Amino acid sequence: MAGKIRTGIIGLGRIGQIHLANLLFHTHNAEVVIASDISPKAHDYARDMGVKQVTADAAEVIRHPEVDAVIICAPTPQHVPYTIEAANAGKHVFCEKPLDVSLPSIRSAAEAVEKNGVKLMLGFNRRFDPNFARVRSLVSNNTIGDPHILRITSRDPAPPPLEYVKVSGGLFLDMSIHDFDMARFITGSEVKEVFVKGDALIDPQIRQYHDIDTAVIVLTFENGAIGVIDNSRKAVYGYDQRLEIFGSKGMAKAENNTPDNVIVHNNETVQTALPLHFFLERYEKAYRIGMQAFLDCIENDSPSPVGAHDGLMATAIGLAAGLSLKENRLVKLDEILNGD
Amino acid sequence: MAGKIRTGIIGLGRIGQIHLANLLFHTHNAEVVIASDISPKAHDYARDMGVKQVTADAAEVIRHPEVDAVIICAPTPQHVPYTIEAANAGKHVFCEKPLDVSLPSIRSAAEAVEKNGVKLMLGFNRRFDPNFARVRSLVSNNTIGDPHILRITSRDPAPPPLEYVKVSGGLFLDMSIHDFDMARFITGSEVKEVFVKGDALIDPQIRQYHDIDTAVIVLTFENGAIGVIDNSRKAVYGYDQRLEIFGSKGMAKAENNTPDNVIVHNNETVQTALPLHFFLERYEKAYRIGMQAFLDCIENDSPSPVGAHDGLMATAIGLAAGLSLKENRLVKLDEILNGD
Amino acid sequence: MAGKIRTGIIGLGRIGQIHLANLLFHTHNAEVVIASDISPKAHDYARDMGVKQVTADAAEVIRHPEVDAVIICAPTPQHVPYTIEAANAGKHVFCEKPLDVSLPSIRSAAEAVEKNGVKLMLGFNRRFDPNFARVRSLVSNNTIGDPHILRITSRDPAPPPLEYVKVSGGLFLDMSIHDFDMARFITGSEVKEVFVKGDALIDPQIRQYHDIDTAVIVLTFENGAIGVIDNSRKAVYGYDQRLEIFGSKGMAKAENNTPDNVIVHNNETVQTALPLHFFLERYEKAYRIGMQAFLDCIENDSPSPVGAHDGLMATAIGLAAGLSLKENRLVKLDEILNGD
Amino acid sequence: MAGKIRTGIIGLGRIGQIHLANLLFHTHNAEVVIASDISPKAHDYARDMGVKQVTADAAEVIRHPEVDAVIICAPTPQHVPYTIEAANAGKHVFCEKPLDVSLPSIRSAAEAVEKNGVKLMLGFNRRFDPNFARVRSLVSNNTIGDPHILRITSRDPAPPPLEYVKVSGGLFLDMSIHDFDMARFITGSEVKEVFVKGDALIDPQIRQYHDIDTAVIVLTFENGAIGVIDNSRKAVYGYDQRLEIFGSKGMAKAENNTPDNVIVHNNETVQTALPLHFFLERYEKAYRIGMQAFLDCIENDSPSPVGAHDGLMATAIGLAAGLSLKENRLVKLDEILNGD
Repeated sequence: MAGKIRTGIIGLGRIGQIHLANLLFHTHNAEVVIASDISPKAHDYARDMGVKQVTADAAEVIRHPEVDAVIICAPTPQHVPYTIEAANAGKHVFCEKPLDVSLPSIRSAAEAVEKNGVKLMLGFNRRFDPNFARVRSLVSNNTIGDPHILRITSRDPAPPPLEYVKVSGGLFLDMSIHDFDMARFITGSEVKEVFVKGDALIDPQIRQYHDIDTAVIVLTFENGAIGVIDNSRKAVYGYDQRLEIFGSKGMAKAENNTPDNVIVHNNETVQTALPLHFFLERYEKAYRIGMQAFLDCIENDSPSPVGAHDGLMATAIGLAAGLSLKENRLVKLDEILNGD
Repeated sequence: MAGKIRTGIIGLGRIGQIHLANLLFHTHNAEVVIASDISPKAHDYARDMGVKQVTADAAEVIRHPEVDAVIICAPTPQHVPYTIEAANAGKHVFCEKPLDVSLPSIRSAAEAVEKNGVKLMLGFNRRFDPNFARVRSLVSNNTIGDPHILRITSRDPAPPPLEYVKVSGGLFLDMSIHDFDMARFITGSEVKEVFVKGDALIDPQIRQYHDIDTAVIVLTFENGAIGVIDNSRKAVYGYDQRLEIFGSKGMAKAENNTPDNVIVHNNETVQTALPLHFFLERYEKAYRIGMQAFLDCIENDSPSPVGAHDGLMATAIGLAAGLSLKENRLVKLDEILNGD
Repeated sequence: MAGKIRTGIIGLGRIGQIHLANLLFHTHNAEVVIASDISPKAHDYARDMGVKQVTADAAEVIRHPEVDAVIICAPTPQHVPYTIEAANAGKHVFCEKPLDVSLPSIRSAAEAVEKNGVKLMLGFNRRFDPNFARVRSLVSNNTIGDPHILRITSRDPAPPPLEYVKVSGGLFLDMSIHDFDMARFITGSEVKEVFVKGDALIDPQIRQYHDIDTAVIVLTFENGAIGVIDNSRKAVYGYDQRLEIFGSKGMAKAENNTPDNVIVHNNETVQTALPLHFFLERYEKAYRIGMQAFLDCIENDSPSPVGAHDGLMATAIGLAAGLSLKENRLVKLDEILNGD
Repeated sequence: MAGKIRTGIIGLGRIGQIHLANLLFHTHNAEVVIASDISPKAHDYARDMGVKQVTADAAEVIRHPEVDAVIICAPTPQHVPYTIEAANAGKHVFCEKPLDVSLPSIRSAAEAVEKNGVKLMLGFNRRFDPNFARVRSLVSNNTIGDPHILRITSRDPAPPPLEYVKVSGGLFLDMSIHDFDMARFITGSEVKEVFVKGDALIDPQIRQYHDIDTAVIVLTFENGAIGVIDNSRKAVYGYDQRLEIFGSKGMAKAENNTPDNVIVHNNETVQTALPLHFFLERYEKAYRIGMQAFLDCIENDSPSPVGAHDGLMATAIGLAAGLSLKENRLVKLDEILNGD
């Protein structure tokens, strides 16, 4: 591919703005041709950042003749329709997670992408976090040996508003889905079974939406490893994002990042900094590196680092988790994958 | 109680020798009157350490008129018979874990202890480890708030010989039983349900003894908390003994102890020490503090810090874990407690 | 000040490029009107980045009617002439360190700045490093109490080429000068006395340029504190930038930053990451925050956070250090300040 | 040497009691024949611990026909007389530090020891601390390469009573002397020069005794390394005992030890434990290992690990430090060694 990759962004919410800034300032082979959002305020924002063309119509981005790649940051229900439309228009697609909450819908997007020979990359940005990418490399280069036990801790600093919870798809598809993808990424293996214990320990009100805010999720993998994820919607000390892989040759763990490395001693205790507050701070680099990876897979015509299959499996694990919670039993992933 | 507490030890294996040294050198209100072991070599050892009377007959220790308290370090099948005999002889009892692998048997020991008004303390030494005791205090003084998630990592540096595995009672009753007690100790709550995924990932040979060497165990507690224990028989980097409690007001975690606090930088990496090798090193202080706690509960006529109920519950959780593994399902503890 | 601050950059070497990128992408109230460099390649670079006007003539930048502030990244001998010229043209000045190696010359720049009522900020970027800024705040808000002992460790990953050493002004004015500024910044006090022990332990060849590569520097401060800096031109494990302040109420120390927070355990050791390689990585954020601070002091007409006096004192301490090394004795700063 | 080494202790103050307990309980080839102290209370203590013979007369210990080795824990002025007396009686000697504050006096003790062919070991217990011993081994096995910079931080939790300060011999001979020995131990090199800056920053009252409570001490070594020690009589956060050696191949540092490894997170900060309170806790193991090393050098007829020369040099550095402070100049050690 000669020259810069010409991109168009759909949706300029919090995540869309991150991707816009990364495309403009932190990647070396992209330009932004057009951006769409339904809010006029977002148009001003985009123009201020230097985007020449703005529109309220997503279709205009997808059909724009000078756009090579579409960045989809619209709400989840539009992910699959826009992906299919863009693929059919011959455009590469970067789409925020989750691709969808329905497996048939994901499969239809996957087919459109394959049929049209375009790249699809999903926004599982955490794979590009330097800590987690390093742990993955220690597994893939066999430093850790055969993986036996995986532990992921993923806790948010505060629960979202109840309004959001209602439409979020639930803890597993909204929050844990990142951890499901991470589990597959770190072990390099597919999930076989899912078992969940969860409850609303932080805010009992969310029970009315059939949701939970605290969960422990056990996964078994095809390579024999056993994994456990613990999730909470509220860690008062901040965004807690750690993991550990234990294998036949050793163990690697990723600790939290902090805003500084200062250690303070007084007559009562020794104090260090809390973790970086939330995902914008914690995954600032991951967002940049991930977007560069998307551009590079287009430029080099190499496989997408996070494709449709990854989206399918993460959603399937989420659906299995929901079923396990509901029926209080171990759920085989095949029940979900073959069930639709 | 005036004067020193006069003790007699049954069994001078590895653990018996630790308790002997602690009684002689590291506690301030005990003397050792007599010690028994079937091995003549152990007799020499005891005499060298300054024990005046040695015997091959455990009954001699139990019936010795000058013995106030009996320390039982014999093999597990003798724990309950000796405990009952000693209790009936009016002697206080310190007994190594597990008290037994059968709940009715444990209950009979508990009854004998209660009937005779003597103290029974079980050797769940880890409760006295400074790290874990500190975490417990942070829970009991409400620094952590309501407990939501408990994580225990407990991995041995190397599996025991197959000969031992055969008679060990299995991973859950031999190794995880410490973690079951720790889970109850840290949360201050009883276990309601148990779910296990486990496998023989280190040495497939142990499958012939219907045992496993790797496990992830989910526990739910009466106070609403959810716990997860991960066990391995072989961590190549040493004895890995960590835990973390996450609650509504914060989180506390206990990291491993190391032989030194030296940090080495070279042109490739930054290196620190491996964890202390195994339980003798890691729990050296815990053994001392625990034995002192036993002596003190006798001297002050205060409740035993780890009594028969604790032994019963740890064994019950172990039996539930075994059933969960066998039937691949969640097991309610009541199935076990009411089932015998 | 209404609108964006219009800047011009002189010098597009390694540091000039950092400042250019920060002005373009990481500050919110600047634009870059013009950039100068003697190399045509640098012109291409600037145009690629989006700078519309480029020139080989620094004077064009200084005299440009649309330039409010000049960023001087030219070689040290030009710092003072350009600063004076810019000040006389009514332009604010950001100038890289050191302002100069001669105190009278620095004083002449200071006078020009004061006479013309413009801002001068020196590029002591480390003051804006989140670690060191946090330690400073702990001193200034009295968390640490009265400062008693200051320790600064400042070691480069590799010595510069001998060609550079020849013209560098020597270890103290080239490298330690950052630490001298840091010492004043952290303690909030002026240096009274300097004592140095130093040697060429890494490369004896630099002795021919009367320079050293290893030094321990003792400073006494007007507030009674005693400080010690240790410098090396070659830490094989990377860029080592730490400090510690010990006072009557406590102690705070800043540790190194690393590219990741992964901890790897194998059967031999526990490994963590080396420090970030060198100043570009380590002080990436400090450069950004520092440039923003310069823009903000212009916008708010507030005092420069690092002014001419700071440049004067850092150079004076450097000259005192050189004299101490030469004469193997304690040197009072007044000897230097009053000696010219 | 056949059988156990028969020891006698002179002085049962705080340190004497530590050595007594170690000889009785934590070493494997010693017995304690007799102990002396002027206080009757100390006699009771010794008898309680199991010492059969007690006396108020130190000479009785030295002359006791069944004593092979004398442990001298009397006040400093008696160190040399008792050492000489014991050596002349053919007894091995373990003597607390400092051997003396006068170099001729130390030399006379050294001569007596050599003439009589007995072992003399000085109580520089910190050499046997696992942290510092490990750092030393990294220097001696060339992991660190040629030593360039040594940093020792040694701060007490609280100053001693003024009554003690009066007779202590001053900061350098009372407190820093341990650090002087450590500096020689870690670098494996002799000190050439000493430069001191110090003041009474904690309690100005001690100036009336011509003493200080805060010091920064620069040492140069014969192998080219440069060292710096910082001392304070009062670190409000506890006993701060760290060091770092930087060399051509890497760097090793020893951090403080803590009573536990628990990390607590709340909504404001992350907290860990303060360092172990003071030398009894911090150097508990060092005292044991050191006493065993003394017994072993007797049993194996190997050289004392800390001999008279070590005592001489530590005192000489202390005297040089005092002169440097007084005259505010660099002092060559030869001025001290050749000056008496």
